[in-house]
Amino acid sequence: MKKKSLFPVINGLMHGCDYNPEQWLDRPDILEEDIKMMKKANINAVSLGIFSWSVYEPSEGEYHFEWLEKTIDNLYKNGIYTILATPSGARPAWLDEKYPEAMRTDCYGQKEHHGFRHNHCMSSPVYREKVSNIIRKLAEHTGGHPGVIMWHISNEFGGECYCPLCVKRFQDYLADKFDNDISKLNHAWWNTFWSHNYSSFCQIEPPFANGERTNLGLDLEWKRFTTWNMNDYMKSEIKLLKELTPGLPVTTNFMQFYSGLDYNVMAEELDVISWDSYPALHNDSEPFYKTMENNSFYHAVMRSMKRDRPFMMMESAPGLVNWQEYNKVKRPGVHKLFSMQAVACGSDTVQYFQWRKGRGSFEQYHGAVIDHLGKDDTRIFEEVKDLGDALKKISKTAGTVIEAKAALLYDWDNKWAIEDIKGLSNNTKNYDAVCCSFYSAFLRLGIEMDVIASDRDFANYGIIIAPMLYMLRPGVADRLESFVSKGGQLLATYLTGYVDINQLCYLG
Amino acid sequence: MKKKSLFPVINGLMHGCDYNPEQWLDRPDILEEDIKMMKKANINAVSLGIFSWSVYEPSEGEYHFEWLEKTIDNLYKNGIYTILATPSGARPAWLDEKYPEAMRTDCYGQKEHHGFRHNHCMSSPVYREKVSNIIRKLAEHTGGHPGVIMWHISNEFGGECYCPLCVKRFQDYLADKFDNDISKLNHAWWNTFWSHNYSSFCQIEPPFANGERTNLGLDLEWKRFTTWNMNDYMKSEIKLLKELTPGLPVTTNFMQFYSGLDYNVMAEELDVISWDSYPALHNDSEPFYKTMENNSFYHAVMRSMKRDRPFMMMESAPGLVNWQEYNKVKRPGVHKLFSMQAVACGSDTVQYFQWRKGRGSFEQYHGAVIDHLGKDDTRIFEEVKDLGDALKKISKTAGTVIEAKAALLYDWDNKWAIEDIKGLSNNTKNYDAVCCSFYSAFLRLGIEMDVIASDRDFANYGIIIAPMLYMLRPGVADRLESFVSKGGQLLATYLTGYVDINQLCYLG
Amino acid sequence: MKKKSLFPVINGLMHGCDYNPEQWLDRPDILEEDIKMMKKANINAVSLGIFSWSVYEPSEGEYHFEWLEKTIDNLYKNGIYTILATPSGARPAWLDEKYPEAMRTDCYGQKEHHGFRHNHCMSSPVYREKVSNIIRKLAEHTGGHPGVIMWHISNEFGGECYCPLCVKRFQDYLADKFDNDISKLNHAWWNTFWSHNYSSFCQIEPPFANGERTNLGLDLEWKRFTTWNMNDYMKSEIKLLKELTPGLPVTTNFMQFYSGLDYNVMAEELDVISWDSYPALHNDSEPFYKTMENNSFYHAVMRSMKRDRPFMMMESAPGLVNWQEYNKVKRPGVHKLFSMQAVACGSDTVQYFQWRKGRGSFEQYHGAVIDHLGKDDTRIFEEVKDLGDALKKISKTAGTVIEAKAALLYDWDNKWAIEDIKGLSNNTKNYDAVCCSFYSAFLRLGIEMDVIASDRDFANYGIIIAPMLYMLRPGVADRLESFVSKGGQLLATYLTGYVDINQLCYLG
Repeated sequence: MKKKSLFPVINGLMHGCDYNPEQWLDRPDILEEDIKMMKKANINAVSLGIFSWSVYEPSEGEYHFEWLEKTIDNLYKNGIYTILATPSGARPAWLDEKYPEAMRTDCYGQKEHHGFRHNHCMSSPVYREKVSNIIRKLAEHTGGHPGVIMWHISNEFGGECYCPLCVKRFQDYLADKFDNDISKLNHAWWNTFWSHNYSSFCQIEPPFANGERTNLGLDLEWKRFTTWNMNDYMKSEIKLLKELTPGLPVTTNFMQFYSGLDYNVMAEELDVISWDSYPALHNDSEPFYKTMENNSFYHAVMRSMKRDRPFMMMESAPGLVNWQEYNKVKRPGVHKLFSMQAVACGSDTVQYFQWRKGRGSFEQYHGAVIDHLGKDDTRIFEEVKDLGDALKKISKTAGTVIEAKAALLYDWDNKWAIEDIKGLSNNTKNYDAVCCSFYSAFLRLGIEMDVIASDRDFANYGIIIAPMLYMLRPGVADRLESFVSKGGQLLATYLTGYVDINQLCYLG
Repeated sequence: MKKKSLFPVINGLMHGCDYNPEQWLDRPDILEEDIKMMKKANINAVSLGIFSWSVYEPSEGEYHFEWLEKTIDNLYKNGIYTILATPSGARPAWLDEKYPEAMRTDCYGQKEHHGFRHNHCMSSPVYREKVSNIIRKLAEHTGGHPGVIMWHISNEFGGECYCPLCVKRFQDYLADKFDNDISKLNHAWWNTFWSHNYSSFCQIEPPFANGERTNLGLDLEWKRFTTWNMNDYMKSEIKLLKELTPGLPVTTNFMQFYSGLDYNVMAEELDVISWDSYPALHNDSEPFYKTMENNSFYHAVMRSMKRDRPFMMMESAPGLVNWQEYNKVKRPGVHKLFSMQAVACGSDTVQYFQWRKGRGSFEQYHGAVIDHLGKDDTRIFEEVKDLGDALKKISKTAGTVIEAKAALLYDWDNKWAIEDIKGLSNNTKNYDAVCCSFYSAFLRLGIEMDVIASDRDFANYGIIIAPMLYMLRPGVADRLESFVSKGGQLLATYLTGYVDINQLCYLG
Repeated sequence: MKKKSLFPVINGLMHGCDYNPEQWLDRPDILEEDIKMMKKANINAVSLGIFSWSVYEPSEGEYHFEWLEKTIDNLYKNGIYTILATPSGARPAWLDEKYPEAMRTDCYGQKEHHGFRHNHCMSSPVYREKVSNIIRKLAEHTGGHPGVIMWHISNEFGGECYCPLCVKRFQDYLADKFDNDISKLNHAWWNTFWSHNYSSFCQIEPPFANGERTNLGLDLEWKRFTTWNMNDYMKSEIKLLKELTPGLPVTTNFMQFYSGLDYNVMAEELDVISWDSYPALHNDSEPFYKTMENNSFYHAVMRSMKRDRPFMMMESAPGLVNWQEYNKVKRPGVHKLFSMQAVACGSDTVQYFQWRKGRGSFEQYHGAVIDHLGKDDTRIFEEVKDLGDALKKISKTAGTVIEAKAALLYDWDNKWAIEDIKGLSNNTKNYDAVCCSFYSAFLRLGIEMDVIASDRDFANYGIIIAPMLYMLRPGVADRLESFVSKGGQLLATYLTGYVDINQLCYLG
């Protein structure tokens, strides 16, 4: 069995959590308690600084890293390692006040107001500049610390921006993609239909909600561009981090169910894949085992992005979340089941959002290891602690790499194309559900499956499942034929091979 | 039994209605019929001029009050008193055309267009100035008339405005509330979460729909500010009225189910509480007695705002309303039941919207005493007339004040905080329903209950019900403890005492 | 039996389709196949150029009509006639880029972005000018061709625009209608209610979504104006066409279920009525015969607009559509049933959208005679071909005019008024359904019915059904009385005769 340890210093599995001590700087007693209780709970790593920009830099050019350095030090002395975040996930108010171009423009063309999080214009030079600056400062103060073992880039990337800058970048992206030949784009998007031909790339706008909502080619390229632009931004952070701290691995936390970004594209830039696993446990719409099966599918999606190493479950809820319609606490024992599923599926970490519930704001009732009561005699704490013990007992499994002999093909742009089909049953295309159902069927037979993009190598597999492979990327048909001709087994379904990468139907 | 008569000249209970003769000035025959039929129906008071601005002042500076003076005179000569409204509930078109700043800005930051009603920017100096002007004119022409016995301020206050002027007033309100110390506000709102710290009050915006929708502290203070600003506006009208006609009492009509304003705050400025009672009678979702029970709860809410005097049921529907999904006529006998409930619950008036149905526009099918047929031989008319007789027979009850020995605590900001909780069952918090159910349980036992804010005096009560008292205002816990220690009985429920007035969870 | 042939050159019934060869100019093999297969399918007419502007004029002032001329020629040589469209249904991108005033403003006052189709400001002088220009060019190149037998004006007119130009035209329209006397408008709209009186026509705005949504008179006149303005635009196209090609008849394709335009008004400008029939066949909410009955009602609506000649079913789906929630293929045999119903109801044509499925864009899965496979051995093709044979066999029926002895009164402004009633069951007014049910009842008795506006002549009828004739236009009551006094039978229902043409309730 192959092995690839993510964190040699940890020498086992990571048991960690998001930790936000900056919310409690006026309560040194609580910060002291935190360390004690973390040790009690067998926590060996924390994620720091994910949303700390306004504490690092409360007004432009005024910096405070003392508290962070002290925290990292304290943790390290107590055997707890730090995954340090770049704080780009939420901008301080002064930044938006002074540089409003950093705020997104929505799909109606309206500049959004300050607030929320994750709502930056990824094209904005000033946002990128301000991020670079705070990262440099952060690295100056913490970069060489032996307790810091990884960079966590921003947080849960997502969303779109329709500002003039993004529109221009989109046009440039299209011009580049279509060789500066507008007739190529017109043909690829079948623009003669409804007189949609452009005579210049500068006429192309994104699919504004009060604009072009009937051009499938535009829809698809806008999604591809959004990934391209987000990735371009992410690479700018990575480039800087690799300069500043060459040895540290980088990750960013992907989200379950998020279909706005092609994670396969972004995965290539990362050293390790990590994701946040928040299934609606104990829901009323499906049996519990089904929720768990679906969750394992998403584990497989994440694991398969880097088949030669484990992944990380960067976030999960110790007890419950707060954003579902009904929020239910994990029943007794479910915490261990859920966490061990992650490990069994290839994660080398079990991490939580978050260590301690904040007193206020949007997530004051999101589950955490430590409740508002501040006690370590709760059921949640006990289960977390027990899980820590259990992870220790299987520490030798750290670094284990799964070698699946079966693969399921799963492409983001295939998903986007299917969801955008105008026809059939318009509101129930169910691509993910169909993929999950195949994955589950094999799982029940005890057959581990990779879930891979259709442009990945098929060499190591004996069987390939291709549910609803509506869009055939260049070469895929030939490669599948070759796979089968060499004895591979291929299972395809309805809705296979209708369109090319521009969603043009194949003729004949 | 204590007594406090609201209108000594009436010498009994008020049986009244909204009356809009300005819609019929070209039909003197109808106006003459009106007086005759009012007398037949035992009407002894009408509300005049609620939406008459564009008739008083059809273009800027051109005034017409003759018709009003004549109407008040005629009514008075026929034994019918007038409650005179300030006409600020709807602005004439010329005002919005010339002074667009009087129009509201919506939660997307878009200036609204002219139209509808109740949609003024309460901060607007020009709106306040124009209102003052028309009130002065109105008082000049009618103020000393013996038929006028009360001022009805504007109409059904409600709504919010997001214009720059309101934003600035909000910032000033916050600066004042938090001692010009932004760190106090940051702590109160737990702004370190998601990097939400402000470095200056001038960075704070209201919760724009395309802006900050994740800050509970902001949400709550915006609601408190909206009440504060509306109250500030209302006080400006009251101040002027008290100068112009010192002897006349003032009221404004509150709305059932409206949760956008803390009526307890506004009640302090009024001489008498009045409200508009429009339950969905004969609905399909609950038995009839339940609708009536809920209605009695709202009567109790209104009555309890001024425990030393009766309140007024300023509006109710003689037959049916027109804005519910299904609009049903009161079944035979229900009119008396419904009206007598109001009196039994402490109202000294039974008033209707409206006397006569208008021929057109939005409420042409809202029930009225006189239908488009113009006849007095309808069932509705007969029931109204009979009710008038019945009210005469119990005229001695006028001025009766209820002295309840039980109280239910009901805070608007507790309601807002509960509704804004992110967690639990997110869409079904049901604060009002729970409060109603406790009120109903006591009602069935024959125990009358006040429904009061938690900062009111508990001295006269033997029992206090505090359903879902999620937010504990300063001192309330101590006062409840003291109440109990003196022998009082306190009933609390789940979700009690979680947060302070800023919605910060109590620790430990 | 009277006869009036629409197209003498065709000498029978038309079997036609929308044909978009401009999508296949790089595939001469396909274009050649098209002609062969059309002949095989007994197609004798096609509609050309409906959305061809961006091919005719790919950039401003650069024209390409060669392909069109060649197509018309080829078709004609093969016995297939052309209905030529004016291409105003969708603007090229260069037009919106250079003349943004051609784009609509939405009901929030926001200028829409380029895209979609049918979204022109009908008031825009530059749009009208550019349309005139391209029509002149089109007529130059094709006008005298013997294969061209009709003009198809634009496509499926619809929608509204709230730009300043449209607002101004609306104000002028109102001033004209109300004799420049704002008091007449105020009275007609009952504007004293809620202080809605205007002092000048220039204060009146359309019912913006964030503006005046409570004035029924405004709502109604805005709808009437929208028809007036659309008609004014359409007449400008017709005027030009009649100058350029005096002999050619004109039509435009109406839509089933579209209630935004009073088709009775527009019908007067057209030589022939045509419409697009797309019922949701095989749906789950009603039995199949009911869908067919409802469809026959709409046939009757269209037929009755010009009682002295047949109408055209300009579009129908050979197999299925793509825009319903569930899109189902016609079951075997249904194509003939559906098409023959049209003929039986008075259509002299069975036409399809479209001949050949495009490879991409919004309607790539809308049914067509030829599928992406490009074969003529499909069931759809066979059924189309058989239908063509069948139509030939009954070619003598062409020109037949139905003379119904019964009529159902159906007014667009009555429908608008009923839908806008505030009261009753607010969301289920069901005017169309009630009309359909009466029509169906007579249909089952074998009695053919016209469906006419209430201001049409009643002379030829023995029975008139007037379901929910809520709004009585001037003279209608008298004319119905006279109709009955002469022995005619009149059936009226609930909700008859409540309001006048301004929606003012009748009194007394």
